[in-house]
Amino acid sequence: MDSRRILLLIFDGLGDRPVTELGHKTPLESAPKPNLDWFAANGMNGLLDPIEPGVRPGSDTSHLALLGYDPHEVYTGRGPFEAAGVGLELHKGDVAFRCNFASVDENLVLTDRRAGRIKEGTADLAKALDGMKLGRFRAFFKEGTEHRAVLLLRGKGLSARVTDTDPHEEGEKIPESKPLDGKAKNTAKALNLFTRRAYEILKDHPVNRERVAKGLPPANMVVCRGGGIAPQLEPVTHKYGLKAAGIAGVALIKGMFRAAGMDVIEVKGATGGLDTDMVAKAEAALMALTTYDLVVVNVKAPDLCGHDGKPSEKIKVIERMDQMMGHLKTHLPQDVIVAITADHSTPCGIKDHSGDPVPLTIFGDGVRVDEVPHFDERSVARGSLGRLRGKDLMPILLNAANRSEKFGA
Amino acid sequence: MDSRRILLLIFDGLGDRPVTELGHKTPLESAPKPNLDWFAANGMNGLLDPIEPGVRPGSDTSHLALLGYDPHEVYTGRGPFEAAGVGLELHKGDVAFRCNFASVDENLVLTDRRAGRIKEGTADLAKALDGMKLGRFRAFFKEGTEHRAVLLLRGKGLSARVTDTDPHEEGEKIPESKPLDGKAKNTAKALNLFTRRAYEILKDHPVNRERVAKGLPPANMVVCRGGGIAPQLEPVTHKYGLKAAGIAGVALIKGMFRAAGMDVIEVKGATGGLDTDMVAKAEAALMALTTYDLVVVNVKAPDLCGHDGKPSEKIKVIERMDQMMGHLKTHLPQDVIVAITADHSTPCGIKDHSGDPVPLTIFGDGVRVDEVPHFDERSVARGSLGRLRGKDLMPILLNAANRSEKFGA
Repeated sequence: MDSRRILLLIFDGLGDRPVTELGHKTPLESAPKPNLDWFAANGMNGLLDPIEPGVRPGSDTSHLALLGYDPHEVYTGRGPFEAAGVGLELHKGDVAFRCNFASVDENLVLTDRRAGRIKEGTADLAKALDGMKLGRFRAFFKEGTEHRAVLLLRGKGLSARVTDTDPHEEGEKIPESKPLDGKAKNTAKALNLFTRRAYEILKDHPVNRERVAKGLPPANMVVCRGGGIAPQLEPVTHKYGLKAAGIAGVALIKGMFRAAGMDVIEVKGATGGLDTDMVAKAEAALMALTTYDLVVVNVKAPDLCGHDGKPSEKIKVIERMDQMMGHLKTHLPQDVIVAITADHSTPCGIKDHSGDPVPLTIFGDGVRVDEVPHFDERSVARGSLGRLRGKDLMPILLNAANRSEKFGA
Repeated sequence: MDSRRILLLIFDGLGDRPVTELGHKTPLESAPKPNLDWFAANGMNGLLDPIEPGVRPGSDTSHLALLGYDPHEVYTGRGPFEAAGVGLELHKGDVAFRCNFASVDENLVLTDRRAGRIKEGTADLAKALDGMKLGRFRAFFKEGTEHRAVLLLRGKGLSARVTDTDPHEEGEKIPESKPLDGKAKNTAKALNLFTRRAYEILKDHPVNRERVAKGLPPANMVVCRGGGIAPQLEPVTHKYGLKAAGIAGVALIKGMFRAAGMDVIEVKGATGGLDTDMVAKAEAALMALTTYDLVVVNVKAPDLCGHDGKPSEKIKVIERMDQMMGHLKTHLPQDVIVAITADHSTPCGIKDHSGDPVPLTIFGDGVRVDEVPHFDERSVARGSLGRLRGKDLMPILLNAANRSEKFGA
């Protein structure tokens, strides 16, 4: 039995609902996409509930499920994946928070939650906070894109059961973090100490003096949210016996890949934004397939259009996705199983994730090609895969790739 | 994100199997039902296994599942729901039994299991038994419709693991209740004490003297079955954050709604019988939707035709259901998600519940309308919802109503 390699393409937030101004079609149903349709027409198709029917997934819980983990069991919060995404190494027991550089006045009242969407100097600011000792804990701090950053606490006896220091609303004072149970007291104390020291260090930092001189809001505070303890994921290398790599523009998904024991391949031009170079991602994936058994690619762009409520932009993104698929179609080796799906729907009409199922196409040698002609939400519903759950995807792909372990004799 | 209200219509026992004399069609496939078909044609459709594929549900276990509870976990027997249905309040630890007023001879041999389907005087008879002290337990007793009644025992150390005092067959002597384990000894003792006292109190009761004088069988005994300990259900108000109400003709379903923390709306003309006023139920549901987020309506009539094995009657009931749907179609506000389904199949050919899946249509703004033209068992099987389970229904409806909590980030 020849084993095959697997290419899993996850188009973030691709699913949608019928849109009135598109004649009650979804963006996928409206977009010209001959290459996506070619894969559907030459593959087997179905609908996928990333977590369970009706459940509204986050990108993190959904990617966990698509990689075969049970998010109900292993998901501890977004922080640790963000930490892994910016390149911080996760140790057992670490607690990580998503942070923003923010602006506060002298009474610690929030005046700009993103410090004017600061773009430059955040590496210097982060360096000034990195390595701090907080009693018996140690703090690691690293900048992400723009105003985003990650705080990672390390030491014995940490807990993620503490409240955020992010007031979320401008005009509010920075709140103290409070423990949600007795075991979290020291963590809350350390987080509050970090917050006070961060303000002291940042308020007179040269980067901020320069910003103030230019009339820009200073990045003189760090607000933290989404704390989670480092999850213990069985690496996919071990779980499936696959050498695996991931390609993504956004830190959260890169972190997810790293936490799952996958190598992250950096691609020039893969921004995680609307301007991302999808063909470059496809080329990187094809290259990766020469050395990896499983390559997972996340494309964030359709999700952004959904969150912005812009169906016409989503259609344009789908047309660019289709060029990417055209490139793959032309250059794909024979022995690769391709799965095309999404991590969740982000309907333009609701500007947020929804629990509507997403399309799934599986293409490759040996699949039971069905009669679905188009890759969209309603066409695939008539496909031979039926309605599946995220956790079923990896077993199905391993089977299609002739890599399943036999259960029984 | 605009949240919507939810109207869930449960047509009891609606599903069926092909009937030879209907040209191998089901009653649903044979009945003219333009309004039900309109909802299917303008909605998304699928098949629903109320519990699991092939499992033959009771109305109680199925309603639990459709409301999102796991009946394997929370179902303790029919008694408690019957008790809540006749208006008895359930406390933690209470044990309730379904009862019949019955006729026995002087040797306590059952001569009529329904005391001639007694209709009048049962409130007086019940009153004579209500409030009895049975050792350290207290008995509450309330009449239901016709010969039906409920016994509820309250006190510390009760158990439902006791055998019935209902011999089920006429000509049999009223059996002693026996404990099924050591912890149930006191409950069996109390139940036997209740049975003896009930006979002593009822045999010379004026209502029965009058019945005997008229040549009617006396309601001189109470037989008990289906004992269950009060289930602990997380109220739907808390579970889903919905203000919820239920409309039903029969006590069992009313009790189910109450046990799930829902308000029960009494509708004049909603009898739970074939003569029930379905349009009055639709009107009550529309009115309820002005103050409730979730309204659940049970219509018992199709189940009765199934139990009676009368496909032509079932067709007539479906035509009346269709008038009800026509009323709803005309008066439905824009922001309501409507789900049309059944709690189980009651095929006329087997005169009992079966494990065949039931049709499901979900209609409302934003749903991915599919190409199913008719609301029946075989048409909906080609719909975009695929094959779902009862427990998936509430998450799917919450998602369609934009009321889901996001799981993850």
